[in-house]
Amino acid sequence: MQCVRVWSSLRRAAHRAAWTRTQSHAAAARLDLSGIYPPIATPFTAKEDVDYQKLEENLHSKCTMKTFRALFVSEAVSCFCSATGATVRLTEKMAAAGANAVLVVTPCFYKGKMDSRALIHHFTKVADSSPVPVVLYSVPANTGLELPLDAVLQLSKHPNILGIKDSGGDITRIGLIVHKTKTQDFQVLAGSAGFLMAAYCVGAVGGVCALANVLGPELCELERLCVSGRWEEARVLQQRFIEPNAAVTRKLGVPALKQAMEWFGFHGGACRSPLQPLTEAETQQLRQDFSSNGWL
Amino acid sequence: MQCVRVWSSLRRAAHRAAWTRTQSHAAAARLDLSGIYPPIATPFTAKEDVDYQKLEENLHSKCTMKTFRALFVSEAVSCFCSATGATVRLTEKMAAAGANAVLVVTPCFYKGKMDSRALIHHFTKVADSSPVPVVLYSVPANTGLELPLDAVLQLSKHPNILGIKDSGGDITRIGLIVHKTKTQDFQVLAGSAGFLMAAYCVGAVGGVCALANVLGPELCELERLCVSGRWEEARVLQQRFIEPNAAVTRKLGVPALKQAMEWFGFHGGACRSPLQPLTEAETQQLRQDFSSNGWL
Amino acid sequence: MQCVRVWSSLRRAAHRAAWTRTQSHAAAARLDLSGIYPPIATPFTAKEDVDYQKLEENLHSKCTMKTFRALFVSEAVSCFCSATGATVRLTEKMAAAGANAVLVVTPCFYKGKMDSRALIHHFTKVADSSPVPVVLYSVPANTGLELPLDAVLQLSKHPNILGIKDSGGDITRIGLIVHKTKTQDFQVLAGSAGFLMAAYCVGAVGGVCALANVLGPELCELERLCVSGRWEEARVLQQRFIEPNAAVTRKLGVPALKQAMEWFGFHGGACRSPLQPLTEAETQQLRQDFSSNGWL
Amino acid sequence: MQCVRVWSSLRRAAHRAAWTRTQSHAAAARLDLSGIYPPIATPFTAKEDVDYQKLEENLHSKCTMKTFRALFVSEAVSCFCSATGATVRLTEKMAAAGANAVLVVTPCFYKGKMDSRALIHHFTKVADSSPVPVVLYSVPANTGLELPLDAVLQLSKHPNILGIKDSGGDITRIGLIVHKTKTQDFQVLAGSAGFLMAAYCVGAVGGVCALANVLGPELCELERLCVSGRWEEARVLQQRFIEPNAAVTRKLGVPALKQAMEWFGFHGGACRSPLQPLTEAETQQLRQDFSSNGWL
Repeated sequence: MQCVRVWSSLRRAAHRAAWTRTQSHAAAARLDLSGIYPPIATPFTAKEDVDYQKLEENLHSKCTMKTFRALFVSEAVSCFCSATGATVRLTEKMAAAGANAVLVVTPCFYKGKMDSRALIHHFTKVADSSPVPVVLYSVPANTGLELPLDAVLQLSKHPNILGIKDSGGDITRIGLIVHKTKTQDFQVLAGSAGFLMAAYCVGAVGGVCALANVLGPELCELERLCVSGRWEEARVLQQRFIEPNAAVTRKLGVPALKQAMEWFGFHGGACRSPLQPLTEAETQQLRQDFSSNGWL
Repeated sequence: MQCVRVWSSLRRAAHRAAWTRTQSHAAAARLDLSGIYPPIATPFTAKEDVDYQKLEENLHSKCTMKTFRALFVSEAVSCFCSATGATVRLTEKMAAAGANAVLVVTPCFYKGKMDSRALIHHFTKVADSSPVPVVLYSVPANTGLELPLDAVLQLSKHPNILGIKDSGGDITRIGLIVHKTKTQDFQVLAGSAGFLMAAYCVGAVGGVCALANVLGPELCELERLCVSGRWEEARVLQQRFIEPNAAVTRKLGVPALKQAMEWFGFHGGACRSPLQPLTEAETQQLRQDFSSNGWL
Repeated sequence: MQCVRVWSSLRRAAHRAAWTRTQSHAAAARLDLSGIYPPIATPFTAKEDVDYQKLEENLHSKCTMKTFRALFVSEAVSCFCSATGATVRLTEKMAAAGANAVLVVTPCFYKGKMDSRALIHHFTKVADSSPVPVVLYSVPANTGLELPLDAVLQLSKHPNILGIKDSGGDITRIGLIVHKTKTQDFQVLAGSAGFLMAAYCVGAVGGVCALANVLGPELCELERLCVSGRWEEARVLQQRFIEPNAAVTRKLGVPALKQAMEWFGFHGGACRSPLQPLTEAETQQLRQDFSSNGWL
Repeated sequence: MQCVRVWSSLRRAAHRAAWTRTQSHAAAARLDLSGIYPPIATPFTAKEDVDYQKLEENLHSKCTMKTFRALFVSEAVSCFCSATGATVRLTEKMAAAGANAVLVVTPCFYKGKMDSRALIHHFTKVADSSPVPVVLYSVPANTGLELPLDAVLQLSKHPNILGIKDSGGDITRIGLIVHKTKTQDFQVLAGSAGFLMAAYCVGAVGGVCALANVLGPELCELERLCVSGRWEEARVLQQRFIEPNAAVTRKLGVPALKQAMEWFGFHGGACRSPLQPLTEAETQQLRQDFSSNGWL
């Protein structure tokens, strides 16, 4: 299975002048991934099609926030089984649609066979062919598979691989990736707001955080505290994110994320089957996780 | 993620007269799934496209085997992420292409949210819409998710759900599924040759076995021994399958299956990336697993 | 951690004449383990000491059952951390107390280091020194560790190792152990009533079943059906054990086992902390698991 | 299973004046756990008995290090199965032997039954009875069980429970424990040097680190950098600990720890069976993990 998500060109020009799209691998390594990225939740119509108008309204709403430093757009997640070739073709489509970079998840259907050898081969072939730079994506909670450290280190040397989004939350591993790639300009993004400050502390340059769909400016404030070394203030803020973040990810998932978006003035909308709407008890728990931390 | 595989119409007419394709749910429950099914390995061309000619030759080769009682054809595995709607549309395509039934795997990308409620909803909607009967498919080694027992029992009552292919290998669970559905004509298929006899012993009616691509007639002989109550002979034969079966599934996977097919006169061919070819040591281990059990 | 349990001398003399206690390794291999063994639940006094009188009454009660073919007595489970030496000393104490054989669980505190090399070394040293024969014990649900197959096969050759109690429930593995040790008179015991018939079917010689504390004669009836090849009747009986067995083991554990013993006329009594008494809802679920299968 | 380890009185008097032993629960909460603690490796004689003379030499050697701020002595790990009562009795012995506090691991043999209810009951009873304060110990890699967050929060209110040693490495959880107990003076210790800086960053007060047996002063230097807010320097130092720490814990375990101690001038000595000595290749890997990070 491969997920390819698209970095959009909707980023603030002032901040991202360097992000000119390029097919040059040498230049690719220069793309600066630092910042906070929301993996954009996709609003659907009643017929379960993508609701492009609401999506655009969400994006404009976010772009107008002055403190929001970065933006990330995913298409509705696209996953295929097993085939490197299909992933290559998808990166081409994404680049043609204007993506600056692609986020490529570990293939995982034949988990038992997805050892370092197979994964290095896969990502190398994708990165060799992709017209835009590649960011590795390791998300064991969804795929049941962690991109092994030795594969990350080997792939970090590829000129068209920019970095990794690591959603596993193993801070020791994140620190070690930073340490072992320190001569390679390999950029590490935390895959969740739950360990964002700790990731900054050990050397990450940003985060791709579902919670940024809801509390975007607040997460950008945490980023600002971390990069300016104001760790005491950062800690207080970070801790208030842990429960709401768990609620919209691990505990209650996408339906909770979309519900919370509604509370904060965005279009969340319904989930597509097989994801189920929240129960009444879950909605109350969600509200509690935001309100007890001072967000509602 | 949903996998939909197709039961072909290439089955021996004498044995499968009852398998007339029908959209009537009432009739659906009458389809007899008993027997041994190979999940057909897909030969690829050098360009990684499906090689239909070689596929057909494999099928004819198998159909001429006098002892082979059943046949199963999968298209190259098709997996999507998360969407019930897409699965419904795929069942329609498969039915239009002549499938007698479809095998539908558990969706799994948002594993944490795939509880019984979501899974019952998903399979119910698919079965409500599918023009041909549905067989549930639980394969935790690949999906990281086991279809929970309570969901299986609930779904077993659906008139368009025929049974389950259970690849988890938990024989206690398989026995309990048989026991709790005994009034419902719900058919259980073992998902692997490793526990085929034990599954028959506790009440399964057949198996979908990768190893049947290689040792088809021999597995049909095991079926014959089990259904005729010759358990002592069955045990001796069963035990000789365990190591070759593990080799072509859990241990070495599809590349090993395709290599073994070549040894036994079928077109196996190469795997598509990211699956990697066997190393020399793996090939030797594979040969040993067949030869030490008297198959080579 | 090592658990050492004691096979008692309270077995029916007629059935177990061969079980004369001996320190001769050659003779050890002759001990016949076939049959059903209850791992005896230990009644405690109000002060949480072993209640020897009630224990004896339980044993007498079981011995008078005409259909009960075998008996097994454990002391209150004794587990140490990590040390082979301590295990050796405990086997000596058990032998001095009259044990015919000892059941030795995999050490597990330093799980990460308990590879085949360490485990083969451990069991070999224990078996070299133990005055009575050793039975290996693999129980991953409790220890988080399965005795690896290659270690089992290597250890099966030791003259003072009689067999294995395998509680993992992987019927493919059990079949393979039987297959690969068929020239060694190595005896396999199912570690649970849930897969007892399937284990017999693939070549096990008996079972050590918590449920035998409650439904001893009934499990011996299942044994009789299996060894006499009456598999259709066996299946019907086996299936009625699965839910009550799950209730007194995996689902509700020792507190449920002791509650069920009370219902069936034995002394179960309270559990020691940290095990907690059943809640009202759990007690009802337990009763349901027995009554819906016709046992209450 | 319970492990009880002893905080010795061998701590630097100047730093630990407040650590006067007391049975007063109110006073207990005042004990300051901050600092770096080595879980002292136990040297054995050739006969596998504790070598008290070498142990004392190791301790003196450490005490003379000027930068070493704290000390922790474990007896050879003592684990029992399941019984709260036995744990209580062991805490009494440890207190009588001069311990200032006891570290009590989660019981784990009946893992399936060790839910929050049972664990809260267990630790509450131990803390109620223990003559010295209790520190909770959650180490899922060894026990297969994580002390659930809700149990930690409930237990944090007990007047005789000081804090927790958390070896799981989940930095989100550690941050949340700090956050949810911020009004309770509940002290969190990182259970490994691999995530020590990140733990300080989110609010931990120290660490119990196997690596401190080898690189004690260097870990105390990391502590100093963290508590004085010199995070850039701390990061550089932290990253050099990750590989050596993994080598002496998760990857190669106690045998590697003892080997590295020898290289650094301490008495490491042999491990007791079933732990095995390092192979030649493992020894080289260990040396590489220290030397490539500038420690050898």
